[in-house]
Amino acid sequence: MPTTLAELCRTLEGHGMKPVLKGEGETPIRAVATLEDADEGEITFLSNPKYEKMLSGTHASAVVLKPQVASCDRLARLEVDDPYAAITALIVKLHGYRQHRRVAPDPSQSHIASSATIGENASIYPGATIDEDVVIGKNAVIYPGCYIGPRCRIGHNLLLFPNVVIYDGTIIGDRVTIHAGSVVAEDGLGYAPVNGKWVKIPQIGNVQIDDDVEIGANCSIDRATVGRTRIGAGTKFSNLIAVGHGTQIGEDCMLVAQVGLAGSVGVGKHVTLAGQAGVVGHIQIGDNATIAAKAGVAHNVPPGVTVLGQPAIPIREMRRNFAHIKRLPELNRTVKELEKKLAEIEARLSGSDV
Amino acid sequence: MPTTLAELCRTLEGHGMKPVLKGEGETPIRAVATLEDADEGEITFLSNPKYEKMLSGTHASAVVLKPQVASCDRLARLEVDDPYAAITALIVKLHGYRQHRRVAPDPSQSHIASSATIGENASIYPGATIDEDVVIGKNAVIYPGCYIGPRCRIGHNLLLFPNVVIYDGTIIGDRVTIHAGSVVAEDGLGYAPVNGKWVKIPQIGNVQIDDDVEIGANCSIDRATVGRTRIGAGTKFSNLIAVGHGTQIGEDCMLVAQVGLAGSVGVGKHVTLAGQAGVVGHIQIGDNATIAAKAGVAHNVPPGVTVLGQPAIPIREMRRNFAHIKRLPELNRTVKELEKKLAEIEARLSGSDV
Amino acid sequence: MPTTLAELCRTLEGHGMKPVLKGEGETPIRAVATLEDADEGEITFLSNPKYEKMLSGTHASAVVLKPQVASCDRLARLEVDDPYAAITALIVKLHGYRQHRRVAPDPSQSHIASSATIGENASIYPGATIDEDVVIGKNAVIYPGCYIGPRCRIGHNLLLFPNVVIYDGTIIGDRVTIHAGSVVAEDGLGYAPVNGKWVKIPQIGNVQIDDDVEIGANCSIDRATVGRTRIGAGTKFSNLIAVGHGTQIGEDCMLVAQVGLAGSVGVGKHVTLAGQAGVVGHIQIGDNATIAAKAGVAHNVPPGVTVLGQPAIPIREMRRNFAHIKRLPELNRTVKELEKKLAEIEARLSGSDV
Repeated sequence: MPTTLAELCRTLEGHGMKPVLKGEGETPIRAVATLEDADEGEITFLSNPKYEKMLSGTHASAVVLKPQVASCDRLARLEVDDPYAAITALIVKLHGYRQHRRVAPDPSQSHIASSATIGENASIYPGATIDEDVVIGKNAVIYPGCYIGPRCRIGHNLLLFPNVVIYDGTIIGDRVTIHAGSVVAEDGLGYAPVNGKWVKIPQIGNVQIDDDVEIGANCSIDRATVGRTRIGAGTKFSNLIAVGHGTQIGEDCMLVAQVGLAGSVGVGKHVTLAGQAGVVGHIQIGDNATIAAKAGVAHNVPPGVTVLGQPAIPIREMRRNFAHIKRLPELNRTVKELEKKLAEIEARLSGSDV
Repeated sequence: MPTTLAELCRTLEGHGMKPVLKGEGETPIRAVATLEDADEGEITFLSNPKYEKMLSGTHASAVVLKPQVASCDRLARLEVDDPYAAITALIVKLHGYRQHRRVAPDPSQSHIASSATIGENASIYPGATIDEDVVIGKNAVIYPGCYIGPRCRIGHNLLLFPNVVIYDGTIIGDRVTIHAGSVVAEDGLGYAPVNGKWVKIPQIGNVQIDDDVEIGANCSIDRATVGRTRIGAGTKFSNLIAVGHGTQIGEDCMLVAQVGLAGSVGVGKHVTLAGQAGVVGHIQIGDNATIAAKAGVAHNVPPGVTVLGQPAIPIREMRRNFAHIKRLPELNRTVKELEKKLAEIEARLSGSDV
Repeated sequence: MPTTLAELCRTLEGHGMKPVLKGEGETPIRAVATLEDADEGEITFLSNPKYEKMLSGTHASAVVLKPQVASCDRLARLEVDDPYAAITALIVKLHGYRQHRRVAPDPSQSHIASSATIGENASIYPGATIDEDVVIGKNAVIYPGCYIGPRCRIGHNLLLFPNVVIYDGTIIGDRVTIHAGSVVAEDGLGYAPVNGKWVKIPQIGNVQIDDDVEIGANCSIDRATVGRTRIGAGTKFSNLIAVGHGTQIGEDCMLVAQVGLAGSVGVGKHVTLAGQAGVVGHIQIGDNATIAAKAGVAHNVPPGVTVLGQPAIPIREMRRNFAHIKRLPELNRTVKELEKKLAEIEARLSGSDV
């Protein structure tokens, strides 16, 4: 959808931003590209100031950036307070979201139980399996190799990329996307020790995924032993994330790749869990908390607090600890000097009449 | 299977427990539920004392718990020494294990090599592939999208959830369950450096999984370069676990989500590896050892020892280290005061005749 | 392919090695096996000196090892400077690489878009899907359950194990192997916050995988938001690795299992990332750097440097920190003694005339 810089400026205004256009408004723009890759007819952006030096070399026809960046006078540009939000709007405008090829359900190609109910306008690719008594809303897109187990209840606009597996009895809301290879509602690690052997506890609970959740690739979300594992509305997962049985995650959280939550964890709303963080079982994490990358959370985290380290503690304390550890060689030297001086004083005193 | 509290009491007695029934034995019970979700006709349980305050609000008709929990006098109950073991028995009694729809193998739907031998009473869902010269015992259940490579030898009662991949030559015992998306016997990271390039070493070994093993979702277990990677009988894996080539895990171990074992590791019997723990190559871990969550094991671990931290050391030492690190600010202040006092003494002495 | 020890000696000479044969050259050899498992007719090897004590018990007919290992006089042997490189050559000679059953593409079994172009001599197993406008070179082997999305461009000798998923628009070079369950070019975690909700940013970039790359099982490689995520030629991945959007990895790197790279990371050539290491976004890692197991990289790493710890610092500094932490109890005792002595001196001085 080729357009002009002036038209893109109006798009941002339509989103309530206050862009300032500098340079030729009639500059034709057809796509968004990176500073490095952009070519004539493309618009680029500078969001992270560490890349500012790349501005001089870009072949883009225009750039989105903050006001008063000195080094780009030669470029047509849109100056905005939040270049990241602005370029998001322009990507949507110029490129839109991924379109999915329409594939009408065909029982000779995919395996749809006769007791399953699938809403109108579904695309079900060959090689998908919908098991008994499943109910799916309108506009589903289900790629090859997906499996939806018996008695799942799923809302409208489901999008499953290839090879997603959803075990029996899962509840899913509207506009949920799950990327390739993820598994939902497998049995958790539930065993009771009996005479030195592990006896499996039937995992009779299920999983509920609320509206507008997006799950990355190759994740796994355990079903509850009893009750429900729950992913709150609007929460987004990256890849290779493990969620234990009975864990409840609130709304609008962000989980980065390889995060692991043990069982029966409670996570509030708008919590960020950064990459490779882990949380032990039965922990409560308050609203708006942030768990730093690789943190190991072993105690409850109050709302709004950022924790870091293993075991995770508030980030200021952890940074203070790091600083103290770094100064240990110096502390050792100081103590050695003190010992020496003290020995001298003792020697002096023992040689005196005192 | 609706029953009564008195009947459930007898079930526990049948398991060798000594339950004490308090309240109305004829209370009808149809299901197990959580303290929070339970309704009339359901039995709940209190295993972790931190949830005791939820007893007062439960709508359950009965509860399983330890003797002498004060706050539940109003509830019919079964008092037992081990509520977790008791509720496990009641879940099995009331709910049983997951039933699998019977799907007779159908060569027009699944892809079964003519040289494969599959025991009686198998369920093979459409879209599974059994490659050449595979031998599988009785009662197998193989969900869609599974692939079993050439020359695998598999015992009775195999259960593969969807999209499990088992490479060629794998040996699997009886009653083995593998959850969706897991991969067994892929090539390990075996390369030799030749003139700055990595030359692939054919991975000619295989994997052996012994009886009663259960593997979670989206795991990966490398085949051995030469010889065998082995998972001992009764061992249970959670999800997203990586096992390197040639590693040998003993019987009845428990591996929590996202654990990673490098190659040629030896793990004894009844070892617990908690979430996100990692073990470097060629390490030996003794029987009954416990590797704490996120631990990074770089040295052999003796039998029965619990290790923590990165690098992992015995938990008592690590906790002492954490305590000392926490007190570093205080130690620094003390040393500063000592310096000051010493300077004063030196000044005093240099001003004296001593 | 049975042969003799003398013939294997010549094989090593053909690779430019200088083996010394000791013992009977006509010893028949048919296979490579481990020290523990080897039987008559098999050759074994000793590469890691910690296994030397197993030499005395091996039933192998011959062994490959370094010169002057005392304890194996009874065994026919090939002495070489690099036993690991030697046994690699012998495994290739005696066992070769895995052969794949030839399965001619069959539109009634697999789902190949009519607009797809597949080079000669392809094996496409039943249950694979090749979507629209895909171009694949010669000799592809594509196992069941694989999905290749629209507009992918793939070179010669592609090898996809079962259930690999490649999203739309991916570029792949020659001789690329991807193990089972891995996902390439899924959307990254790209959202903009708008009024407390996460708005998805269309991920319009793609992924490029260069020649001779091998990817392990159950990995995930995000497509770029804008531009390209890139895996350089000759780089090898183990399993369960997550690569964030826009990250660029150089040539001939080695990534061990469960490594996670956030987005926009730049990794040089010949970098090693050991197991469970993580790198935060927008970090640069220089050529020939080594990231130790479990390291958490939060700052740029210069070429050739090895880093360890969380946050990762040069390994020598980190080891010094560990040593200092270990000595903290001693340091505490020393400071306590100093306090006591100082108090004594002060008492003494205050009792004196000084």
